[in-house]
Amino acid sequence: MAMRGVLRPGFIQLRVLDMAAALTHYIERVGLEEVCRGADGRVYLKAWDEFDHHSVILREADTAGLDLFAFKVCSEDSLNSFKQRITDWGLAVDEVPAGEQPGLGRRIGFTIPSGHRIELYHEVEMSEAHPTIVNPMVWPKEPHGMGAIRFDHGLLYGPNIDKVEEFFTKVLDFSVAERINDDQGAMALWLTVSIKAHDIAFVRYPEPAKFHHVAFLLENWHEVGKAADIITHYNISLDAGPTRHGITRGQTIYFFDPSGNRNEVYAGGYAYYPDNPTRSWTMDQVGRGIFYYERRLNESFLSVVT
Amino acid sequence: MAMRGVLRPGFIQLRVLDMAAALTHYIERVGLEEVCRGADGRVYLKAWDEFDHHSVILREADTAGLDLFAFKVCSEDSLNSFKQRITDWGLAVDEVPAGEQPGLGRRIGFTIPSGHRIELYHEVEMSEAHPTIVNPMVWPKEPHGMGAIRFDHGLLYGPNIDKVEEFFTKVLDFSVAERINDDQGAMALWLTVSIKAHDIAFVRYPEPAKFHHVAFLLENWHEVGKAADIITHYNISLDAGPTRHGITRGQTIYFFDPSGNRNEVYAGGYAYYPDNPTRSWTMDQVGRGIFYYERRLNESFLSVVT
Amino acid sequence: MAMRGVLRPGFIQLRVLDMAAALTHYIERVGLEEVCRGADGRVYLKAWDEFDHHSVILREADTAGLDLFAFKVCSEDSLNSFKQRITDWGLAVDEVPAGEQPGLGRRIGFTIPSGHRIELYHEVEMSEAHPTIVNPMVWPKEPHGMGAIRFDHGLLYGPNIDKVEEFFTKVLDFSVAERINDDQGAMALWLTVSIKAHDIAFVRYPEPAKFHHVAFLLENWHEVGKAADIITHYNISLDAGPTRHGITRGQTIYFFDPSGNRNEVYAGGYAYYPDNPTRSWTMDQVGRGIFYYERRLNESFLSVVT
Amino acid sequence: MAMRGVLRPGFIQLRVLDMAAALTHYIERVGLEEVCRGADGRVYLKAWDEFDHHSVILREADTAGLDLFAFKVCSEDSLNSFKQRITDWGLAVDEVPAGEQPGLGRRIGFTIPSGHRIELYHEVEMSEAHPTIVNPMVWPKEPHGMGAIRFDHGLLYGPNIDKVEEFFTKVLDFSVAERINDDQGAMALWLTVSIKAHDIAFVRYPEPAKFHHVAFLLENWHEVGKAADIITHYNISLDAGPTRHGITRGQTIYFFDPSGNRNEVYAGGYAYYPDNPTRSWTMDQVGRGIFYYERRLNESFLSVVT
Repeated sequence: MAMRGVLRPGFIQLRVLDMAAALTHYIERVGLEEVCRGADGRVYLKAWDEFDHHSVILREADTAGLDLFAFKVCSEDSLNSFKQRITDWGLAVDEVPAGEQPGLGRRIGFTIPSGHRIELYHEVEMSEAHPTIVNPMVWPKEPHGMGAIRFDHGLLYGPNIDKVEEFFTKVLDFSVAERINDDQGAMALWLTVSIKAHDIAFVRYPEPAKFHHVAFLLENWHEVGKAADIITHYNISLDAGPTRHGITRGQTIYFFDPSGNRNEVYAGGYAYYPDNPTRSWTMDQVGRGIFYYERRLNESFLSVVT
Repeated sequence: MAMRGVLRPGFIQLRVLDMAAALTHYIERVGLEEVCRGADGRVYLKAWDEFDHHSVILREADTAGLDLFAFKVCSEDSLNSFKQRITDWGLAVDEVPAGEQPGLGRRIGFTIPSGHRIELYHEVEMSEAHPTIVNPMVWPKEPHGMGAIRFDHGLLYGPNIDKVEEFFTKVLDFSVAERINDDQGAMALWLTVSIKAHDIAFVRYPEPAKFHHVAFLLENWHEVGKAADIITHYNISLDAGPTRHGITRGQTIYFFDPSGNRNEVYAGGYAYYPDNPTRSWTMDQVGRGIFYYERRLNESFLSVVT
Repeated sequence: MAMRGVLRPGFIQLRVLDMAAALTHYIERVGLEEVCRGADGRVYLKAWDEFDHHSVILREADTAGLDLFAFKVCSEDSLNSFKQRITDWGLAVDEVPAGEQPGLGRRIGFTIPSGHRIELYHEVEMSEAHPTIVNPMVWPKEPHGMGAIRFDHGLLYGPNIDKVEEFFTKVLDFSVAERINDDQGAMALWLTVSIKAHDIAFVRYPEPAKFHHVAFLLENWHEVGKAADIITHYNISLDAGPTRHGITRGQTIYFFDPSGNRNEVYAGGYAYYPDNPTRSWTMDQVGRGIFYYERRLNESFLSVVT
Repeated sequence: MAMRGVLRPGFIQLRVLDMAAALTHYIERVGLEEVCRGADGRVYLKAWDEFDHHSVILREADTAGLDLFAFKVCSEDSLNSFKQRITDWGLAVDEVPAGEQPGLGRRIGFTIPSGHRIELYHEVEMSEAHPTIVNPMVWPKEPHGMGAIRFDHGLLYGPNIDKVEEFFTKVLDFSVAERINDDQGAMALWLTVSIKAHDIAFVRYPEPAKFHHVAFLLENWHEVGKAADIITHYNISLDAGPTRHGITRGQTIYFFDPSGNRNEVYAGGYAYYPDNPTRSWTMDQVGRGIFYYERRLNESFLSVVT
């Protein structure tokens, strides 16, 4: 295969205040499926079009937010090689043994300069509810709710974004698809490791380890509209949209889970190849970059994080 | 960057019987843009969302069909490395010097066991009508006709598909996303080099070097419907669709250019990652694999090639 | 109100061979809701966006087909006036007392020259699951399956279409939105009573009282595609489509219920106002009229009726 | 035919500050076609799916706003009957002779209690660029820009809405599809004369004869999204959306023409039949009624009128 190293965002672990409410939200509304529950109370979910065991983990806690964001890499050799490169770059790397999560092999973890815990792993079991492999159907069973296709990307807020950029591009081999620079350097980065417009993104923020949103893929703008209908029908708290981003071109809507964690469901966006130029935004056009139609920023979008 | 070697289908060169009719078709109907014309009469086209100089070349000739299918690779080093690997695998490799096509650097070319000429290159100028890079707009100018987003993939017919599979997977590092095997081995292959469900596909056929179709990407099923409206409005010869493929899940319509070369415009399809299993089809379900809704084959789709 | 006389198709009664299979089909797949079951075994269904008590009645029988097609009129006075006009035109009119169907008042019934039983009524209770009236939601509850919005129209096959045209236009005040004439006169008629492109349609056929299809409205072409996905997923027998009609411009797909009754789900179509000209088709273009993309007829579509 | 009296909104005459800018806007962006120019400088436009001679008239003037809103009625007899009924209700009715506008017959005009001039007419020539009648194509030529299908409705602001309601329902035979009442009576009304959710709407406002918006129909939510792309691409002033109305369920986007007249392009909405109940909104839910997704009002939407 031509792809090496990091393949994609593999799973995210979120803290929720009330597990029952969170499950209704992520399963009935967003459209994920429950895979299993751990002895420690964590609940493992996946989207219908994912082969791997799970992609979203919910953990009941006193505060909302992000526990960790994990990427799948292409092999154990690659994992070992990353361990060395990350250590060489100066981050402490710990090992999480296989079995800490059901279905998952050994992981390595570390804290990046924005304060977020990132993990890498290779081994993971195939989910039982995986897409059909022999004589496949378009979907293994009829999607429900918003019909989220996959856990797609996340946006994280924290300090030291210039260092985060160096880490992701030099150590993890990501590319910068889009960026906003101001006179202090990188203000926001959209990073990709295959041909998606983004796999993870960062915005400069004084407080470390903050979580802006987790995004799930939908089929198209029509499905974004149906997600909006669902959001109002069930009185889910809307943040922004339906609209489009200038950055990535994604057609999008933002809303909050019952614990206040922001979710995005989106469709579209261009294909970014690593030989493409990095798109960049000047500060006077950032409004259009974030909200292409409104062409101005929305205060809560910028400042509310968990 | 994490992607290595071959990046994507770069351009295709097609033979057309009547250049004026072909230009009306590919520009006014499919929605490509003319880049320039060569002194030898070839016309260079591109889709609106491509950075590179051109992606479709039309050459007037007495017979329709495919001259060559070219892939862009990530670097000159990679190109040299492929030259060695291809030679080692046993194919004769020739060099095409920079300048044989406007905007393009040096290429290497060779004939694969199905009889098709394939080329690899790295150097190519950026098109003037490239997507905007600073404070980008969703499109650089309003799309027209079917609004083709990019040259996406091709399907080629010829013999020795098992050898073609070995070549693409062992030498060019492609993955097999889907396959149909019969008792003679590989009957059809869908090959990918990034996370698209296919970049090139092959069907076993006794005659070498035949061309089934070139495909252009559209935004979604709604745009496939609008393409269908355009096809009938301008009395373009329809082959099949609008329908969906079981294979790749693409939402699709097939039609012929005025020279009889088959075109596809399509949307959707899953993301294939190289750790995903290869999907496979048994012969009794091939009808559904090709035409998911009709669940049976269409004679002209199988047998008409140029 | 400006609309007088007949308002719209009100309900249809179909014969099915196996009630359980029919209910799975119309409820789980097409997306209707069960309203109630009668003591005689008939089952009453409705679509989510209808105010009236029911719009589809299923009756278990030894043969599939249509029992009757009923229109709602604007008032009891109007009903009485129609009774007189129909009698004057020469048809025998019978009375069906209130209560023959749950929720329905008195009806009048008669057999038109094509052999079909048509009924008119005014009084009907509002369904419990009606669209919300005070501070309405977009839907009263999340649609499911194909999400059929309403019972929209039917196409009936039988003899004496010229007489049927006279009856519907002179007696029931319908307009002819589109027509196909051959040297024997009207071969096919699309009749409307408000601004829909059709409320009922007829095709000339030697055998009387035959049923071609009942149609349900979907939101748009995207939903037609999702209906197609459902059709294949549950192995429902497909007849034609997804495609578009030249006649009415509807975006459409045809399939069969488990008893062999043809269903259509469709979207789009123009608004027909009674001051618009009747669109007409010449015999050489009928293929495009029926199947706008394929531009040729499909034998089963023409000849299979129940 | 079953429809009587008023058929539909026929045309609107708007004042624009700069005709050249207005023509670029309504033709290139909204997608209307120029029909002709009058000796007095007025420019006549129509949408591609309309049979009548024109539906939008632009008049250059020093202030933006609405000159008149005209409805087509079903016959000259009906026109005469309305003249009598309107006079009997107490409004002064004037006659505008045939020829005051190209292609149009005699009209009657009057000022309703909200201060707006309304006209009725029956006679109008068919446009040259009408939809095809014999062997029709889906569109007579490829739509462009936003692809507006028809002039659909308008929203007018002014005083005496209770009297306006009485006039439209008792004299012109409209129905009230939706309403917002407060303790002073009708605050807002959505009025329809066939099965559209609205043909004209009114909001109570102290100043008479004000214009909120003119609306054009699009095919679906996907086209609303494309309209949004066009709005930003050409830097058109956005007012609100893309979003959905709770009232009428329309999927919508609002923007301003270069003179400050508000435009809407929208899709969807339910079918309203005159036997349906009037939907009503309580004041605490009006935000959701207007903007279904945001569930709160937008100051400029309420207060900016021309």
